[in-house]
Amino acid sequence: MTSFDLSLYLVTDRELSKGRSLSYIVEEAVKGGVTMVQLREKDCTTREFYELGMRMKALLSPLSIPLIINDRLDIALAVDADGLHIGQSDMPWQVARRILGKDKILGLSVETMQQAEEANRMDVDYIGISPVFATLTKTDTLQLFGLNGLKEATSLSRHPAVAIGGINLQNAAQVVNSGADGIAVVSAIASVDNPRQAARELKLTIKKEVPNEME
Amino acid sequence: MTSFDLSLYLVTDRELSKGRSLSYIVEEAVKGGVTMVQLREKDCTTREFYELGMRMKALLSPLSIPLIINDRLDIALAVDADGLHIGQSDMPWQVARRILGKDKILGLSVETMQQAEEANRMDVDYIGISPVFATLTKTDTLQLFGLNGLKEATSLSRHPAVAIGGINLQNAAQVVNSGADGIAVVSAIASVDNPRQAARELKLTIKKEVPNEME
Repeated sequence: MTSFDLSLYLVTDRELSKGRSLSYIVEEAVKGGVTMVQLREKDCTTREFYELGMRMKALLSPLSIPLIINDRLDIALAVDADGLHIGQSDMPWQVARRILGKDKILGLSVETMQQAEEANRMDVDYIGISPVFATLTKTDTLQLFGLNGLKEATSLSRHPAVAIGGINLQNAAQVVNSGADGIAVVSAIASVDNPRQAARELKLTIKKEVPNEME
Repeated sequence: MTSFDLSLYLVTDRELSKGRSLSYIVEEAVKGGVTMVQLREKDCTTREFYELGMRMKALLSPLSIPLIINDRLDIALAVDADGLHIGQSDMPWQVARRILGKDKILGLSVETMQQAEEANRMDVDYIGISPVFATLTKTDTLQLFGLNGLKEATSLSRHPAVAIGGINLQNAAQVVNSGADGIAVVSAIASVDNPRQAARELKLTIKKEVPNEME
């Protein structure tokens, strides 16, 4: 499998990018230290999603930054992405794994403690613990993990875990201290004036907290 | 490749099924003589689409009626459907063919005469000529082929062609007389009180018009 580093995981959202292109946001974010990119697109045609995916692949592949596609296994296959991220209302993980193959990264969102526990019996490569804090990006999820929930979820999970939901420069350190292998952000990078600077600051904050990644 | 018979092609639409289940509509339609079924779902989660697809596969496979999935190659692969139907804003046909393999049916919608001509250079198994007449089902297409356009498109195409858009018992004979290998319908079967009877009547009308299928 492609090796991956969950520490600073960007999830895209064109609507939150303040009119700037996805390529711009992603390129700047990577320059600032983003270690993984998930392309999440909900309201576009398959052709548009495919073309965006191809653009992201061309941008990220030379930099060895894994490209993960949200939900759409067809797009992941079509653009030969490094992996797929599924939620609880997407493809069943067994089916996704079978079609995706063993060599690709398969991530799963867990939204409750029970789902985090169930994921231990699944052949996925990481879990996304969601949402940790309140957020405007995802409105369809209900229960917040909070830092205590995050601690509990990361300790019971056998998988690497990235935390998502309302994470920013102010709380990133606490999130990593609560056992997450990384933080996933949308608006903390996509919606700010200087995405590169934002990524750099987040990265520095995280590095300080992760002993085995200290420089 | 799975052999297929375009003559009476049902395209599903849950919103036009008057509250009846998709399984009911499809089962009745097949009993009435439908020869192919396309599962078209635009507003549901991947999981729902997958589960519907599995149900349709279980229903149609024992009856040897090909199941075609609209747009979503991931669903087609996941449920091992007989084929995929793509439109002009879906996956590029080359990519769809590569991932789908040679053994599956690949259909393509053409909405202009130029697209019908371009399809001759594509490795697709049939074309859907759309729309022939005005319809409420598809609102995003502009130009109507009409019977003359249909004649022109079917004569220039090297592919088998199914006609779609506003086809019903009153005009089905003319459509087949204009060179179409079959008719695709949504509401003419899904929205009527007796889908089985509607399918049977459409089938009889078509058979009368196709010399080599006369009984």
